Amino acid sequence: MCAAPAAEVGLGLSVLAEDPSASAAQVIPHAPVGAHDDRDAVLGFAAACDVVTFDHEHVPQDVLAALLQDGVTLRPGPHALVFAQDKLAMRSRLGELGLPCPRWCRADRLEQVAEFGEQVGWPIVAKTPRGGYDGKGVRVVHSASDLRDWLDRATGEGTGLLLEERVEHLRELAILVARRPSGQVAVWPVAHTVQTDGVCTQVIAPAPGLDADLAGRMQRDGQALATALDVTGVMAVEAFEVRGPEGVPTYLINELAMRPHNSGHWTQDGAVTDQFEQHLRAVLDLPLGDTSPIAPVTVMANVLGGSRDVLTQAYAAVWQADPAARVHLYGKGVRPGRKIGHVTCTGADVKSVWRRATWAAAVLADVDPRPIPAVPAQPATPATAGRQAS
Amino acid sequence: MCAAPAAEVGLGLSVLAEDPSASAAQVIPHAPVGAHDDRDAVLGFAAACDVVTFDHEHVPQDVLAALLQDGVTLRPGPHALVFAQDKLAMRSRLGELGLPCPRWCRADRLEQVAEFGEQVGWPIVAKTPRGGYDGKGVRVVHSASDLRDWLDRATGEGTGLLLEERVEHLRELAILVARRPSGQVAVWPVAHTVQTDGVCTQVIAPAPGLDADLAGRMQRDGQALATALDVTGVMAVEAFEVRGPEGVPTYLINELAMRPHNSGHWTQDGAVTDQFEQHLRAVLDLPLGDTSPIAPVTVMANVLGGSRDVLTQAYAAVWQADPAARVHLYGKGVRPGRKIGHVTCTGADVKSVWRRATWAAAVLADVDPRPIPAVPAQPATPATAGRQAS
Repeated sequence: MCAAPAAEVGLGLSVLAEDPSASAAQVIPHAPVGAHDDRDAVLGFAAACDVVTFDHEHVPQDVLAALLQDGVTLRPGPHALVFAQDKLAMRSRLGELGLPCPRWCRADRLEQVAEFGEQVGWPIVAKTPRGGYDGKGVRVVHSASDLRDWLDRATGEGTGLLLEERVEHLRELAILVARRPSGQVAVWPVAHTVQTDGVCTQVIAPAPGLDADLAGRMQRDGQALATALDVTGVMAVEAFEVRGPEGVPTYLINELAMRPHNSGHWTQDGAVTDQFEQHLRAVLDLPLGDTSPIAPVTVMANVLGGSRDVLTQAYAAVWQADPAARVHLYGKGVRPGRKIGHVTCTGADVKSVWRRATWAAAVLADVDPRPIPAVPAQPATPATAGRQAS
Repeated sequence: MCAAPAAEVGLGLSVLAEDPSASAAQVIPHAPVGAHDDRDAVLGFAAACDVVTFDHEHVPQDVLAALLQDGVTLRPGPHALVFAQDKLAMRSRLGELGLPCPRWCRADRLEQVAEFGEQVGWPIVAKTPRGGYDGKGVRVVHSASDLRDWLDRATGEGTGLLLEERVEHLRELAILVARRPSGQVAVWPVAHTVQTDGVCTQVIAPAPGLDADLAGRMQRDGQALATALDVTGVMAVEAFEVRGPEGVPTYLINELAMRPHNSGHWTQDGAVTDQFEQHLRAVLDLPLGDTSPIAPVTVMANVLGGSRDVLTQAYAAVWQADPAARVHLYGKGVRPGRKIGHVTCTGADVKSVWRRATWAAAVLADVDPRPIPAVPAQPATPATAGRQAS
């Protein structure tokens, strides 16, 4: 998705593609084939680049180290990327920085799981420190023995597991921030990310009814975090909205991603500068773009693989009904539930924009769009909640 | 510029590139090399395409005919494209349709030039019927003898010349319209195109202070014209704003272009659907997108080649000063005055948006931006003008 802004802005973009039919290779002329964990392939690719960045976090640290040793300009650098690669490192660093997190611990033995569960209350959430995404590598655990298999593997690999309290949250939010090496940071409005079965299905931006103080605090925290971790490029901070003591609105950080992220796709049609152009500007140490929204509300709905194989066949139906629906497809093969595209709609009314985007995404994939799920309710207004509790 | 929307929407785009370093070949993976007037190259290219369209009007009619004979789906078809290729055919057809044009005639002999000049008043405007653009192929003529060289050549080639009265216009306007084969038409707001030395330098959309009745009439005429000519894709109608009898605001058609056009670049950042995506939708006979503007005013300023060779070197200065400036570069070699990119800015106030876009375009090219030319004055409000005249 960086291809379009790179083409418009006139920046030469190359991609190391996992195979010749990869999504990125379909739209970027210079796309040599190689694996992201093949040291020689990555080094050979990087030799011709002014700056190297990543569209996922799975490039191994030893490959990153070899790149640095070769004098390659890597952005973000391995010292920052590790906090998106390793959830235990992330939790530990967030704790040092005093940023709000669920209670957590590292577990290598069953007794530690039992002890943590007793301490914070069952069920708890277990996560593999590396390699998880879209609900993979995450398990809700009701007793220590539920975790025997994962723990055996983690112990064998010496990685340990991350245990977290299960947070009773009101909704999920995302902070999207960008930072360039010379220090400038920019932040988009906080978005509401809607998860269905552990997968993000919609994003509403700005998050409707979000307490202004909390929104401001999250934006400031996001920018401070990017600075503290020495991030270059776009970083997404996924978070839970919760009520603190006396009903005061607050949040807890769930995950970090150090790249343009699904929670920021809405910016393509809903903000002056989208996350993909911003990422390119940031890794080139260029001044960051205006992150203002261009509409009162933008809803992004993911297109998840359904029964339709050739999604362009649905364009007529979608655009006939909604000439303003903005469709983005990734050129990926269709598998059930796989993220293969997204739709964004903008407007003034959350409910109608939500309905339009969700409907269009369902029609594209040929998933039954009826009934369209209702727009998630906003948490009770914080001022009221605070007063009720006091 | 169709590359970015094609990539986002997931449409497979190929381009027949004039050479391997052509702008389009830099951003479109499938870009075989061949000349647009090389019949075999064009036929070979088209054989693998579902639909073939054009980014200029210079493909010869015999090549178009061969494509049709080969069963290629050409959009727009040669029967429509001819009105953008041949200005005499265009004037003749517009006259049949009763659309407002300057007085005109075809001249093959000097006496015809003299006679037309006497009739409409000197100076007159002479145009070569084919091949002109950006002020090339257009000459202001003060006497018949001024035209001897052009007329000799035109007579030799049997093409004749187009003579037009010189129109005392208030400003230049452009109607941008799209049409799909099944008949749907869509029109963007009428824009004000600012010309400097015969070259479009800025576009303001919507045209500030344009009489609402005139704007509506121009939009209806543009759509009717697209239908009458059986246009597929985007068509730009360049026009003069003039005052008719009693000061009534009206317009005269100057030129037609049957493709996405410089006067519509503002739509990339200023409208829900830009002209490039719209063109793709139209030639694929898909429902057309919403043409609503997303801001009260958008100004597009062309970047004309100046003393800077590597324009990306100016990004820091431009974006430092204006984080919301939207920059588009074409990957073309720099030649003085050549259109090599454009900048769009959006906002609420015409003067400040004008200043921002014009300044950024000047800095990119390293053309002295001081003093920034003043935003062109709006014609006197028509209602007032009408009353004054009555």
